[in-house]
Amino acid sequence: MSTYTAPLDDMQFALDLAGLPEIAGLPGFEDATPDLIAAVLEEAGKFGAGVLAPINESGDRQGCRLDPDGTVHLPDGAIEAYAQFLEAGWNSLPFKPEIGGQGLPGVVGVAVSEIWQAANMAWALCPLLTTGAIEALQAHGTDEQKAIYLPKLVSGEWTGTMNLTESQAGSDLSALRCKAEPAPDLGEGVYRITGQKIFITHGDHALAENICHLVLARLPDAPPGVKGISLFLVPKILVNPDGSLGGKNDVKAVSLEHKLGIHGSPTCVMAYGDEGGAIGTLIGAPHQGLGCMFTMMNNARLNIGLQGVGIAERAYQHAAAFAKDRVQGVDVTDPKSGRTSIVHHPDVRRMLMTMRAKTEAARALTYYAAACMDLAHAHPDDTRRESAHHRLDLLTPVVKAWSTEVGFEVSDLGVQVHGGTGYIEETGAAQHLRDARISRIYEGTNGIQAIDLVSRKVLRDKGHEVHALIAEMRETHAALADAPNELAAMAPRFGIVIDDLEATTTWLLEHAIPEDAQAASTPYALLFGIAAGGWLMMKGALEAQRRLEAGEGNPTVLKSKLATARFFADAQMPFTGAHRATAMAGPDSLMAMEEDWF
Amino acid sequence: MSTYTAPLDDMQFALDLAGLPEIAGLPGFEDATPDLIAAVLEEAGKFGAGVLAPINESGDRQGCRLDPDGTVHLPDGAIEAYAQFLEAGWNSLPFKPEIGGQGLPGVVGVAVSEIWQAANMAWALCPLLTTGAIEALQAHGTDEQKAIYLPKLVSGEWTGTMNLTESQAGSDLSALRCKAEPAPDLGEGVYRITGQKIFITHGDHALAENICHLVLARLPDAPPGVKGISLFLVPKILVNPDGSLGGKNDVKAVSLEHKLGIHGSPTCVMAYGDEGGAIGTLIGAPHQGLGCMFTMMNNARLNIGLQGVGIAERAYQHAAAFAKDRVQGVDVTDPKSGRTSIVHHPDVRRMLMTMRAKTEAARALTYYAAACMDLAHAHPDDTRRESAHHRLDLLTPVVKAWSTEVGFEVSDLGVQVHGGTGYIEETGAAQHLRDARISRIYEGTNGIQAIDLVSRKVLRDKGHEVHALIAEMRETHAALADAPNELAAMAPRFGIVIDDLEATTTWLLEHAIPEDAQAASTPYALLFGIAAGGWLMMKGALEAQRRLEAGEGNPTVLKSKLATARFFADAQMPFTGAHRATAMAGPDSLMAMEEDWF
Repeated sequence: MSTYTAPLDDMQFALDLAGLPEIAGLPGFEDATPDLIAAVLEEAGKFGAGVLAPINESGDRQGCRLDPDGTVHLPDGAIEAYAQFLEAGWNSLPFKPEIGGQGLPGVVGVAVSEIWQAANMAWALCPLLTTGAIEALQAHGTDEQKAIYLPKLVSGEWTGTMNLTESQAGSDLSALRCKAEPAPDLGEGVYRITGQKIFITHGDHALAENICHLVLARLPDAPPGVKGISLFLVPKILVNPDGSLGGKNDVKAVSLEHKLGIHGSPTCVMAYGDEGGAIGTLIGAPHQGLGCMFTMMNNARLNIGLQGVGIAERAYQHAAAFAKDRVQGVDVTDPKSGRTSIVHHPDVRRMLMTMRAKTEAARALTYYAAACMDLAHAHPDDTRRESAHHRLDLLTPVVKAWSTEVGFEVSDLGVQVHGGTGYIEETGAAQHLRDARISRIYEGTNGIQAIDLVSRKVLRDKGHEVHALIAEMRETHAALADAPNELAAMAPRFGIVIDDLEATTTWLLEHAIPEDAQAASTPYALLFGIAAGGWLMMKGALEAQRRLEAGEGNPTVLKSKLATARFFADAQMPFTGAHRATAMAGPDSLMAMEEDWF
Repeated sequence: MSTYTAPLDDMQFALDLAGLPEIAGLPGFEDATPDLIAAVLEEAGKFGAGVLAPINESGDRQGCRLDPDGTVHLPDGAIEAYAQFLEAGWNSLPFKPEIGGQGLPGVVGVAVSEIWQAANMAWALCPLLTTGAIEALQAHGTDEQKAIYLPKLVSGEWTGTMNLTESQAGSDLSALRCKAEPAPDLGEGVYRITGQKIFITHGDHALAENICHLVLARLPDAPPGVKGISLFLVPKILVNPDGSLGGKNDVKAVSLEHKLGIHGSPTCVMAYGDEGGAIGTLIGAPHQGLGCMFTMMNNARLNIGLQGVGIAERAYQHAAAFAKDRVQGVDVTDPKSGRTSIVHHPDVRRMLMTMRAKTEAARALTYYAAACMDLAHAHPDDTRRESAHHRLDLLTPVVKAWSTEVGFEVSDLGVQVHGGTGYIEETGAAQHLRDARISRIYEGTNGIQAIDLVSRKVLRDKGHEVHALIAEMRETHAALADAPNELAAMAPRFGIVIDDLEATTTWLLEHAIPEDAQAASTPYALLFGIAAGGWLMMKGALEAQRRLEAGEGNPTVLKSKLATARFFADAQMPFTGAHRATAMAGPDSLMAMEEDWF
């Protein structure tokens, strides 16, 4: 059985490293005092451990169930947990006060969200998607849509979904076929939506009294391809102009997927307009739906990266507890001391340290990107806002791809630490692996993220932003080289990492044709993740050393930061060289086979 | 839905590369003509595709079921498939004629076994374990045991199991508690066994009329630790001296594990002696059970490596078929040609080529090790037998660990190629991932394999055998460097790989204390797998080039060998540098954390 304790010290350290002290001083965040933030995290930790974590395994075992009328039943405890979640005000935490939120920095909301994802990833997908719907409506909704929907979504009384995928249109949204016909009989700006969407997470449930589906569809005059897609708001229950609920809309879940994991989260096939047309309203301008949806997607991508962090943390805690408890063999450094817990075996240590170091690096990177989001929104200085925005854009695909790769690898190692027991479902380690697996696929596969990184984030600005990041890495490298021995010892390896990132970036800029760029994209994204995560581990080590010298903070926590940073340098950083070589090998051998040889 | 076609061309190529032509010329293998072997593989392919593969997915869905009386029910079709398997003589194929086998080289048996594992890994575990029991009895059984049991096991009328693990004794067999008391009332050499074993694969089923459990237990006068473990043969149904079946023995399955995968294979908790004592006979000398069991384990380890190869092949075929069929996006090299199947996208190619190249390398390595087994048994020259034996010993842990890592990575990539569909169980891609996961754990976890490699196979002979292998690698490297351009282009990278293996071996020899060796063991095993698999890919490329120049064989197959070899050099070989650096970083950062910091 898995238990979960929010790693408050680690989270606080990562928040500080991401720049929370500066962010908390920005206009609008006056209430975000260190004491308040610490109290919020502590309470969130209690809620995650006490309410969400206990229904994680049972939710996996029970799964969801669909009635013939389209009603979806969630596993036991999901509804009660959601009610408590709303009552405690957790749903509104990350939003701005003007729409009913609590005005905390986004990065604090991200830290809190890590707790939900770690405690119960399947359940937590519901508020995660509501957050995305709020972002899209805030940015692109009409005043009326905002007035009616935002307060309900922010409070969590209503939830949101993203409806992109159709069976013939997955990564390729240009192939979408869902239709939207103007319905002037029902009012201006009203449409009838018809078609079927697949893979709709929390497409139906009884957590909330209404569900706001954000649906991509084509208008009758739409040009073909991605430039003819519009975004619509289609509520499950129709909403009257005064905000009160009307009758049922013509939308329902027609089947549930039987998935590898996240069994507690219903993944629905949604049918729109089986009885003539689901009634919806346009969000944003006609044919601009993809851009509107990307507002939602970018937010969601950070949050999916956060799922990687959360599930990694959960799997790590699970495995570490087992390793400290399970007695097998003798300690090789002290064979006469008798049988020992496996945490003393070097090969088990290797797994635990890999789990811990990668989790910390992915958390540091994800929080850092979230902090960029805060700076991009709230900093009074135009230049700082703009540079934070560029940094966030650059890092979003890295956070999504790399943190979810970390989440999977760490949960896979968690199974391995358990040995044979890890393969038994009741142990719970395998559930983390199964749950983590989806995060590398949804919200844009990690392959799509890597292509986004290379083509839109590196090549489009001719490497400007990545070079700005590399320059900051070199500053950290210089500080490391000047630091005391144990830190300075990491400088040569970190220097190679930076060189690998720079050289591969240069290669990409010199091979800026799609075939070369796409052939190199995944190794580049993996290299980037290690470099960016490693950079923050090095910054963290410098900060931990500073605090130790200054006598600030818990020495055990700080010394463990130095240990994981050293391990990351020893055992993770060497892989950038392999990714560099793979990326720079180019597409020749990759594309050498004829299609019919496969 | 997954289908499977035995990759006969690839298998034949790997057999030739492993040295089948030489082996087929050894005394005892006179019947093993190329035509016969080709016919055997073709028929095995038909059986795998036609009988075993069709019940793979249904077996996963249905799983096994236990009656309160200890009777285990397998999924639909398992019994019928097993009856056909015996009828066609497949069970006896790999054994020597003197015990009822067909006298084919072991490496051919291994190729055939790959087909069973690929077609239906859960089902195929049953004959796999029978093979191990046969090996142990052949090597250590009494004449009476051999006379009674071997013919039935070889024909497959009876099956075998391995009973090692107890809940407190997993990787650490010294902690075994099962007891064996002499039962002179029942005859000399007869014992009453009591205790409980866990994780017993195919511990009960109705495939065969009897099940021969090989059970590790302690005699009353046993010294503590691994030197006090004896091996017993405990049949499910008692066997009369004339070989006829008697009454039920005091052994039964008391529960079935609910596992991540291999649902078609019952994993049992077995209770021995609930009603006074299960009756068994000693195999080998008292207290020498571990050595006897290792006869079985070494064979089983190669076969588990083969599961990695088989499941990788299955996952590859599944993903390649999907990638050629699934239309998404446009071809970046020819955007105007309209929408295209995803096999044209470089990032999908990267996944498919990784899957294919790693599968081929793992197959080449596994077959090569099996060929060493044939040479070690059958070569008339003492020196050749001995050197083949050393090579087999060295490679066994590498085959088990690396091929199963490949099996998992390839099936994981298979899920990713499918995108969202891969996460849906009905697609079948996720089953490969779930099934493959166990192979990294059982028959000694891959961490244990890595420690075995370093401590018993490299350090114990002071690097003698690994240096002999490295010398052969350097010969291949020299041939590569002298070959035409496309081949010679791989030589520099392969040279680095050999240097990495040699340097890390030297480091290990210089750091031959357990803590250092164990800290380095997993990266060393991974490095070794790439180097040894890569060596055979290079040898394969040279052979493919020779055949192309000589006009021998199918040019498409041979050109695809060149393509996968180049891709392996470009995209897999660079990782040896990372593993080398990680191994040689030593245990300092690995062991830096205090136990209570975790």
